[in-house]
Amino acid sequence: MAKSVRVVFLGGVGEIGKNMTALEYGDDILIVDCGVEFPREDSPGIDAILPDITYIKENIEKVRGIVLTHGHEDHIGAIPYYAEELNVPVYGTALTLGMLERKLSDRGIKAKLVRVKEGDTVSLGCFAVEFIKVAHSMAGACALSITTPLGVIFVTGDFKIDNTPIDGKKTNLQRIAEIGAKGVMLMLGESTNVERKGSSTSEMVVGQGLESIFVANADKRIVVACFASSNYRVQQVLRLAEKYGRKVILAGRSMKGIVEVASRVGELDIPKGIIVDGMGKLPPEKVVVIATGSQGEPTSALNRMSRGDFNKVSIGPDDVVVLSSTPIPGNEKSVYDVINNLFRKGANVIYEAMNEVHVSGHAYEEELKIMLSLVRPKFFIPVHGEYRHQFKHAEIAKTLGIRESNIVIPNIGEVYGVNANSLKQHSNVTAGNVYVDGVVLEDGNAVISDRRSLAEYGMLLVLASVDLEKGILAGDCDVIARGFNLTDEIEQEIASTVRDTVNGADFDENSLNELARAVKKAVRKLFYRDRQFPIIIPIIVED
Amino acid sequence: MAKSVRVVFLGGVGEIGKNMTALEYGDDILIVDCGVEFPREDSPGIDAILPDITYIKENIEKVRGIVLTHGHEDHIGAIPYYAEELNVPVYGTALTLGMLERKLSDRGIKAKLVRVKEGDTVSLGCFAVEFIKVAHSMAGACALSITTPLGVIFVTGDFKIDNTPIDGKKTNLQRIAEIGAKGVMLMLGESTNVERKGSSTSEMVVGQGLESIFVANADKRIVVACFASSNYRVQQVLRLAEKYGRKVILAGRSMKGIVEVASRVGELDIPKGIIVDGMGKLPPEKVVVIATGSQGEPTSALNRMSRGDFNKVSIGPDDVVVLSSTPIPGNEKSVYDVINNLFRKGANVIYEAMNEVHVSGHAYEEELKIMLSLVRPKFFIPVHGEYRHQFKHAEIAKTLGIRESNIVIPNIGEVYGVNANSLKQHSNVTAGNVYVDGVVLEDGNAVISDRRSLAEYGMLLVLASVDLEKGILAGDCDVIARGFNLTDEIEQEIASTVRDTVNGADFDENSLNELARAVKKAVRKLFYRDRQFPIIIPIIVED
Repeated sequence: MAKSVRVVFLGGVGEIGKNMTALEYGDDILIVDCGVEFPREDSPGIDAILPDITYIKENIEKVRGIVLTHGHEDHIGAIPYYAEELNVPVYGTALTLGMLERKLSDRGIKAKLVRVKEGDTVSLGCFAVEFIKVAHSMAGACALSITTPLGVIFVTGDFKIDNTPIDGKKTNLQRIAEIGAKGVMLMLGESTNVERKGSSTSEMVVGQGLESIFVANADKRIVVACFASSNYRVQQVLRLAEKYGRKVILAGRSMKGIVEVASRVGELDIPKGIIVDGMGKLPPEKVVVIATGSQGEPTSALNRMSRGDFNKVSIGPDDVVVLSSTPIPGNEKSVYDVINNLFRKGANVIYEAMNEVHVSGHAYEEELKIMLSLVRPKFFIPVHGEYRHQFKHAEIAKTLGIRESNIVIPNIGEVYGVNANSLKQHSNVTAGNVYVDGVVLEDGNAVISDRRSLAEYGMLLVLASVDLEKGILAGDCDVIARGFNLTDEIEQEIASTVRDTVNGADFDENSLNELARAVKKAVRKLFYRDRQFPIIIPIIVED
Repeated sequence: MAKSVRVVFLGGVGEIGKNMTALEYGDDILIVDCGVEFPREDSPGIDAILPDITYIKENIEKVRGIVLTHGHEDHIGAIPYYAEELNVPVYGTALTLGMLERKLSDRGIKAKLVRVKEGDTVSLGCFAVEFIKVAHSMAGACALSITTPLGVIFVTGDFKIDNTPIDGKKTNLQRIAEIGAKGVMLMLGESTNVERKGSSTSEMVVGQGLESIFVANADKRIVVACFASSNYRVQQVLRLAEKYGRKVILAGRSMKGIVEVASRVGELDIPKGIIVDGMGKLPPEKVVVIATGSQGEPTSALNRMSRGDFNKVSIGPDDVVVLSSTPIPGNEKSVYDVINNLFRKGANVIYEAMNEVHVSGHAYEEELKIMLSLVRPKFFIPVHGEYRHQFKHAEIAKTLGIRESNIVIPNIGEVYGVNANSLKQHSNVTAGNVYVDGVVLEDGNAVISDRRSLAEYGMLLVLASVDLEKGILAGDCDVIARGFNLTDEIEQEIASTVRDTVNGADFDENSLNELARAVKKAVRKLFYRDRQFPIIIPIIVED
């Protein structure tokens, strides 16, 4: 078999989030990104979902390092959970590593972090990784041009083509064009916004939108909610605050922390003396609040403000609140609850595309075409999106002349071997979800599955004591319900089912467990007719 | 105190769904609509949420009847649960009652249904209710002009102003103008689409969008998913099927049932012989499937097709699937899961505003202005929307010259007394959510609250037997966990906590319950540090 570089998808395909890809050749493995997925309603109570790194642990002696495209949670968030176990160097730009360090120190973990600049190339085993500046919704984002012994693999990372970025650092199309001209074997291209036609809007436009709000609300306090990691957004609010003579309150732990990090690494320019700790004696019209909570997160500053539960900032008719964001699918209800509550407090609320107060950090269709046209890869794998996004990205690649047989849409756990002549599927490796609820759960799938059942149907505890000598039920059985509507009728039905089961069974002391299983089975059957599946816990004790 | 008509909000304010308003004057109560709210992720396992009708039951001898604006679930869905108890006549147009009858007969319930035509006026106690045709996403929708002894109350119901409706029956702006000219005391106006600028698009445009799909996919089977209740949408697909020589398969129980109802009452014209039961020997390009599931509902036809679990229709590369809908906030993830799975099966999927395959049935900002301008109410109450919608609708009313003091934004349970001169708030009445999980739950709030805790944190069952004579724990305690990550460490911690609690307590046989409470409290405390709140069930038995 011809030699090939193995591309191992441990995440970031068929889903938004949890980006992690490994490149493997000979004795070397290079990991690109190591992020978390944000939990949704189908994983209740879960803090974060990590990629399953069984394959990496099994091959740990080959792993030369982790390279990070940028500092968003879905690209770096799993590192704090795995850093000690993997114990390999992590490469990233200043802001990327600043974001990561903050997370590591929260958990008291150390890791070997190696800072790179845009334009740098680092060698990791047989791989040479060049970091190429791309524009995104946060600074320090890079595409990666990875030279392997068999050819170049180009990873776009998250990007957009912003010709007027706030910090003047554009996506380095020139360098990308050079690399494309020399020949790229395989490109992994992000697909998030492939459904959006045309090109994304420049971050600069948000500044104009926000400025019109500053002008129109000169007599009010302004509260801007955005992602703490959106340093460009925060920068623009800071500049406007300075221009219009307002002080700035940072609201929310991560807003304060990340602003500090971004400023320290030189990606945020904070006008001297502009940040204050609270309202003090400032009138509303002299203050801007920059707050976390643009996604309605329950413990965020904005959510707490909307519930009147945030000490430093009490929302009322003197406030105009700007949600500089768009709800991530699944967060709509939380976001709108916050908006409704802010309106109830008398504030004016500006949200969504009503004014130009948000732009996306991900390339639209035409930008994706530009990237493909410059990189001109022989083989193409669309990543970072749900299947529908990857599918459309593949369709676009075809219209640009990439042959259908040279494109694959991978699933998580799949492995592809690539060389100058072919892209072939290998056997799958272990991959999937590892759940975190405070700690990493050992059997997260069972915990989640039980939680779903408990939420959907509730639980029934059936407590019965048996007379071992006579082999019958002693007294009545007790039923305790939680999250289940236990009527007298059902309780009686359960009691008689338990009696019939116990009295009809042959057992001795050793078979109490078996009897418990029989009781569980019999009680469960009662609910089949109504298609209810409560979790049933039988407790059979000796009288 | 001056006499007034009491307007009692039992639902339909501050939320989407569960519409129910009562008008009360002297000894007469008239109920307008009686709908359900669709459950979201914060009420897991719940089939439907009904309005709390305590106030109605307490005043049942005054209730003269229920008038229905149209046949959507959020306006009629609670009637089957309350019909026998209320036992009052229900007035509605043919399709509205047809939809209701179907639901009643599903549950084997009879009710006094009185059919009206658009233009009819019915007298109910001191109220005279005129049904006025409005366009909406289903036929038979009406606004209500309710003449009371103190003046006219105008209820818009759900409406849009469609000048080219499929059945030619436009919103009766002429009659509304007449009523407005004579003087309207109070208007209750729906607010759903107040955030959308301009005017909604005619249903006719969907036909054009669908036709272009028929033309472009002449060699494929076409699957159109839409609400079963969207008789205009179904009508247009039937016409296109006839025009392009395709047979039609109806997929999904409610699609078949509602098509039958709509056809029976004359609101759907089914070309003879066009409907077939299955593919038989038909080639794909000779078939259109009209399916339920445009919101990704788990047991719907489209969802089952996407999972390869629908016998009659197996989706593959010969299919183009059209979601003639837009995801209701909260349903996005389900809808996109279905879309991803359809793509995985090789189908082409057309969804959202990419093509013109869906229009809304609710008036946009400019249409709401037209309605307010024609009705010219003295007092205005925006209803049917979240608070943000009601708020914006109130803002619009102000720009049209309605005085701010003549507008209120009500909350559920609030009562307003209105007469020609004033609109004043009265004391609240009981109102809220009644949960249905198969049956109407007696203490739904507790069930829901337990389910949320179980989902978020799981449960721990602590089983201990005590030696009553010695007053100490007999043997070890058992811990059973569901939806909770029980480590050995935590298990040991619980065991020693239980031992300390039991051994430290004074108790006799009568105080086992008290001991159980103490154990629960002590164990619960263990989890405070990690902010975990599992449901803890202590079972203390005598050794």
